[in-house]
Amino acid sequence: MIHIRPIVFAIGLMLAILSATMLLPALVDLADGNSDWRAFFVAAVFTFIIGGLFVLVTYDERQVQLGVKDAFLLTTLSWIVLCGFAAIPFIGVGISYTDAFFETMSGLTTTGSTVLTKLDVLPRGVLLWRALLNGIGGIGIVVMALLVLPYLRVGGMQLFHTESSDKSEKIVPRALELVSATAGVYIGLIFLCAVVYGLLGMSMFDAICHSMATLATGGFSTHDLSFKFFNSPAIEWAGTFFMLAGALPFVVMIQALRGGVRELWYDEQVRGFLSFIAVLTLVLAVWLSATRGIEFHNAVRLSAFNVTSIVTTTGFASDDYTLWGTFAIGVFFLLTFVGGCSGSTAGAIKIYRLQVAGLLTRRHFTHLITPNRIVTLSYNGRRLPADVPFSVVAFLAIYMATVGIFTVLLAGMGLDLTTALSSAAQAIGNVGPGLGEIVGPSGNFAPLPAPAKWVLAFAMLLGRLELFTVLVLLRPEFWRL
Amino acid sequence: MIHIRPIVFAIGLMLAILSATMLLPALVDLADGNSDWRAFFVAAVFTFIIGGLFVLVTYDERQVQLGVKDAFLLTTLSWIVLCGFAAIPFIGVGISYTDAFFETMSGLTTTGSTVLTKLDVLPRGVLLWRALLNGIGGIGIVVMALLVLPYLRVGGMQLFHTESSDKSEKIVPRALELVSATAGVYIGLIFLCAVVYGLLGMSMFDAICHSMATLATGGFSTHDLSFKFFNSPAIEWAGTFFMLAGALPFVVMIQALRGGVRELWYDEQVRGFLSFIAVLTLVLAVWLSATRGIEFHNAVRLSAFNVTSIVTTTGFASDDYTLWGTFAIGVFFLLTFVGGCSGSTAGAIKIYRLQVAGLLTRRHFTHLITPNRIVTLSYNGRRLPADVPFSVVAFLAIYMATVGIFTVLLAGMGLDLTTALSSAAQAIGNVGPGLGEIVGPSGNFAPLPAPAKWVLAFAMLLGRLELFTVLVLLRPEFWRL
Repeated sequence: MIHIRPIVFAIGLMLAILSATMLLPALVDLADGNSDWRAFFVAAVFTFIIGGLFVLVTYDERQVQLGVKDAFLLTTLSWIVLCGFAAIPFIGVGISYTDAFFETMSGLTTTGSTVLTKLDVLPRGVLLWRALLNGIGGIGIVVMALLVLPYLRVGGMQLFHTESSDKSEKIVPRALELVSATAGVYIGLIFLCAVVYGLLGMSMFDAICHSMATLATGGFSTHDLSFKFFNSPAIEWAGTFFMLAGALPFVVMIQALRGGVRELWYDEQVRGFLSFIAVLTLVLAVWLSATRGIEFHNAVRLSAFNVTSIVTTTGFASDDYTLWGTFAIGVFFLLTFVGGCSGSTAGAIKIYRLQVAGLLTRRHFTHLITPNRIVTLSYNGRRLPADVPFSVVAFLAIYMATVGIFTVLLAGMGLDLTTALSSAAQAIGNVGPGLGEIVGPSGNFAPLPAPAKWVLAFAMLLGRLELFTVLVLLRPEFWRL
Repeated sequence: MIHIRPIVFAIGLMLAILSATMLLPALVDLADGNSDWRAFFVAAVFTFIIGGLFVLVTYDERQVQLGVKDAFLLTTLSWIVLCGFAAIPFIGVGISYTDAFFETMSGLTTTGSTVLTKLDVLPRGVLLWRALLNGIGGIGIVVMALLVLPYLRVGGMQLFHTESSDKSEKIVPRALELVSATAGVYIGLIFLCAVVYGLLGMSMFDAICHSMATLATGGFSTHDLSFKFFNSPAIEWAGTFFMLAGALPFVVMIQALRGGVRELWYDEQVRGFLSFIAVLTLVLAVWLSATRGIEFHNAVRLSAFNVTSIVTTTGFASDDYTLWGTFAIGVFFLLTFVGGCSGSTAGAIKIYRLQVAGLLTRRHFTHLITPNRIVTLSYNGRRLPADVPFSVVAFLAIYMATVGIFTVLLAGMGLDLTTALSSAAQAIGNVGPGLGEIVGPSGNFAPLPAPAKWVLAFAMLLGRLELFTVLVLLRPEFWRL
């Protein structure tokens, strides 16, 4: 049975919080003397009223215990409904609802694809709202990855079930503690990043907006040129550093704050992630300096920033890497699939799944060569739970199939193969840029046909909720009692 | 321990048989008064001498029982060595060894990509040799799929373990019976196809060459225009029919010969395969007649031929479908991955793996929604063996990863993304044409840089041997005692 009323209650609460955040851009526009403040104010009031109604109507059932099905439905519904409301201010400033919904979904899922052009001359309220969407989305994703997805056992996330969550009495205090610690680290890092960006020469407004987009691995910039606008190696290195931070598991960062930086290196996922980025940065840097005649230290910086940006699924650009030649294009296409660590704001397949798939492949080869040998698998010092291998490999297969299906859908709307395939892959991975003139790192999603924007927005949602959370709702048996 | 001598003995025998087949094109060229006959004759003598030496030197150990490792090594080595020798006649007619090896690997793996141009004016010996490579490769593949791969438990092929093969005494007579029945059906179908092609207007030579390339799902034609050359709807429909036959499981066809055509429809794989082709043909036909103004019956013919050609991994073209618009391109790109039935000459992922993956996905969703429900999986009326699910899903994951790695390798050689990706996918799937000007259905692989040709030849081998058979040799533990 599905408990719809407590779900509505929870969504109502979230809408109320969302409405409060809409007041921030209203205040900025008001201070700027820009009449756009009304769009944000009206949207805030409207969202608050609807959210309040949701809460009032369902208040009596707020304590009803939610089952697995309810959790699936709540997770997917809350993202869609919040996105629908968070898009309202954009309509108020004259953007079509298709574009508004696309931009909002891109922001909240921390994808970072944009349909807005001439960012540099847009009112600061709109720019701040985009940054806030990234920021809010980021914290939503981390909390979901900590509390909800392991419970739903989606795509092998049960690996990250925190031990004590099995003892049911302790769930709530422990969960609250975890969430507040995580939120503390997240907001602390955003603050630190903003200060660093400011010290390195960004305006305060740019520093605040970019720090949210960085830690959320979102990638919304306040300038059409993204990080290239600042033309500052120091800012690029700072961006690289904080994008990496946004793609690390927040639980491990909390441990590192308590137990020292070594804790980070003890984590198999973090170690794999950082090594992967380091090796790829080096390979591309050598290739860049060898084939494009770029000085090695510049090549390292360019390579580090752009590799980190794609692998962490942020999507900032400091250069148009599609001009780096076919090898780089091939590499960046594959990088679209990789993703950061689980329990971070990063999207895509994620390092732990690739590591688990690597373990399984190795065992499979052993099994083929010596059929009777028994191999036990452990990951991060723990034995792999029995249902993780299949969950992970099924996730990989469904992930690729989903990219394939969305590619054909988009091709059916007139997109050429490179555009269709790369934009499907980047949307499902919540990366931001694809390849080709329209969706590439120097492009803009505005010229796409409206249906393609809706399809991509749905792809972002699918990817953000680790596919299964949404797909499960499409199964008839989900709706059977 | 690896038994190298009986492996060499087996390869020696195969070389002797191969050398005999080289005499056929020699005879044709001799009859045509073409001096090229010498290239084939010299290659035949050389191959026979080396094969004979292999046999003589290892004759004493010919009866040594082969283990699993030996079977892996024999399978991979025999394909590489046979390909190396089968390429020799091409050198004799003035083709570089890179091109000769590529063309031969493409022929034996029944891929059908070609580097030869102006086929219409080439000596008939060369054209016959290409057709024979398809024909020999086809029978090699079917026998391998029947006897070797299920034993190696590669990629879920253990599903097709014939029951009696567990009783060790009976293996040899049963296997011989199976192989001779299969060879009978294969050769019978080639003969029938040649007669039909001839009756419909092909020259005898074209009919013989195309019938081999059709049943082998190889796709080598004797004309640059492939099937478009004949400009005959009847020949296209005949081609569609026999390509389908080549992609059906031969064991099921033998059953159908004994028990009636209904046997075909009782087989879950065949049913899935034919339904898939039918639905896709219809969708593309509707789309073609709606958007390109082609009469519906012509649209059905075009769509049926080209969909069948790609899904069966044959690769004949009756039209350049890359001119059918972005939707068709997207669809044909995905079709590159599908493949025909197991136990046929078709390549790529294959229908049964997709069906098993579908079953597993459905069960996974049930597991997510109702964690405690137990679902038993059966395929084709039998319970799925315990190690099949993981084998199949691991195969899918490795398949996609392999396509990704080969894409980057090819991109590193200067190929644009569409060319690199589609040619990697078609080579691993043994399909033939990719997308783009060079590797597309109207293109020719000749302009590719030499390293790309070697990479693609290796990709064809990998795909043909269901990935694991080759990859297992790259594991250090394989070589440990």
